[in-house]
Amino acid sequence: MHRRMNLLMFSGEYDKAMAGLILANTAKELDVEVTMFFAFWGLFLVRDPEKLSLEDKSLYERMFALLTPRGPEQLPMSRMNFAGFGKHMLEEMLKDDEAPRLIHFLKGARKKNIKFYACKLSVEVMGFKQEEFLPEVEIIDAKSYLNDALDSDMQLFI
Amino acid sequence: MHRRMNLLMFSGEYDKAMAGLILANTAKELDVEVTMFFAFWGLFLVRDPEKLSLEDKSLYERMFALLTPRGPEQLPMSRMNFAGFGKHMLEEMLKDDEAPRLIHFLKGARKKNIKFYACKLSVEVMGFKQEEFLPEVEIIDAKSYLNDALDSDMQLFI
Amino acid sequence: MHRRMNLLMFSGEYDKAMAGLILANTAKELDVEVTMFFAFWGLFLVRDPEKLSLEDKSLYERMFALLTPRGPEQLPMSRMNFAGFGKHMLEEMLKDDEAPRLIHFLKGARKKNIKFYACKLSVEVMGFKQEEFLPEVEIIDAKSYLNDALDSDMQLFI
Repeated sequence: MHRRMNLLMFSGEYDKAMAGLILANTAKELDVEVTMFFAFWGLFLVRDPEKLSLEDKSLYERMFALLTPRGPEQLPMSRMNFAGFGKHMLEEMLKDDEAPRLIHFLKGARKKNIKFYACKLSVEVMGFKQEEFLPEVEIIDAKSYLNDALDSDMQLFI
Repeated sequence: MHRRMNLLMFSGEYDKAMAGLILANTAKELDVEVTMFFAFWGLFLVRDPEKLSLEDKSLYERMFALLTPRGPEQLPMSRMNFAGFGKHMLEEMLKDDEAPRLIHFLKGARKKNIKFYACKLSVEVMGFKQEEFLPEVEIIDAKSYLNDALDSDMQLFI
Repeated sequence: MHRRMNLLMFSGEYDKAMAGLILANTAKELDVEVTMFFAFWGLFLVRDPEKLSLEDKSLYERMFALLTPRGPEQLPMSRMNFAGFGKHMLEEMLKDDEAPRLIHFLKGARKKNIKFYACKLSVEVMGFKQEEFLPEVEIIDAKSYLNDALDSDMQLFI
């Protein structure tokens, strides 16, 4: 039987998203089944940058959709953000080491069939529509997340 | 035998407190036993907003008691706080969806007999008294937390 | 067989480092085997404050080495930092209670043979050299971390 890892992606920050995606990709190489459950700010990572819908949204939901990051490139750092300079520095350092960047880790995870789930309550409260996310994203509720997490060999809140 | 979930509530932020309490309430509906261990800033969530004691406290402890949040309503957001506007926006969005607010999730957890533990060392260092917390809160040490956590099916640091 | 705890130390903040080290030291007293895996900002905690090397580093790596905290004393708080005043206040409160400070918990962990691992990818991207870390630190890759974590009784992302 496969070992299983469940990641609750809460924070929606560039560096934490990278940590989660590196773990997810590496786990897949070890033949570990991986579930990523995106909730709250974590949803920003799996927004499709090309698909913004403002229809059927309240004023707050429209403001929220416009003011928050759309996809991996727009996520801020959890620290040393320095108005974007810290992220630029990290990306230059990644390039120097020929290490992949966040978009590459995200691409890798999508290719490797890592399960992407979005938290139903977060999606509803923030007013997002299914079609605003990457096509791999499936919307599930907290019960489904918990059943998956409780049956996994490890769980992290990132 | 019941499955068990153990949450270490460290951050004391509105959105993370909500994440933890939604998981706790949902787990209870699945008949999972839930322990919440409040440490450091996490203690702010289980302070009783009505009960502030300044007696037998050092100068720093008094300053700390007065400057830090008392109960769920006063917790800041982990991001997009914008001097309170982000929280206001989130609360309006919750209202629009007829979703419960943080105080309701806290009330639900207290009714459902979710175990509330406070970290003894944090309580002592911050100078809090037992009577400043919600009556459900029991003060335990890190050893008791660890024994509970190690025997649980999942543990998160929130 | 010993129970096992695995901590992924990501944040590199004073209060979270303290939480991780208190858990690690306490777990050892319960005869639990403890692994701490330092990644990203978490590496700052295990930098040797006396050993800074600028050789063989790119411009960004040199800037990074100079601008970021070296060792436990220089870590900022995750909140209430107030340009260092919050940390000063916390340290005074610890002193009043005759509680150990962060450096003592770190010393304790080193004496108790808690395994200190550094994330290979983070080390390479940030340009650190083995000799800039505490001598106990061993550099391992994400696969080794995951195998250890998946076999542990609990895992936290701190």
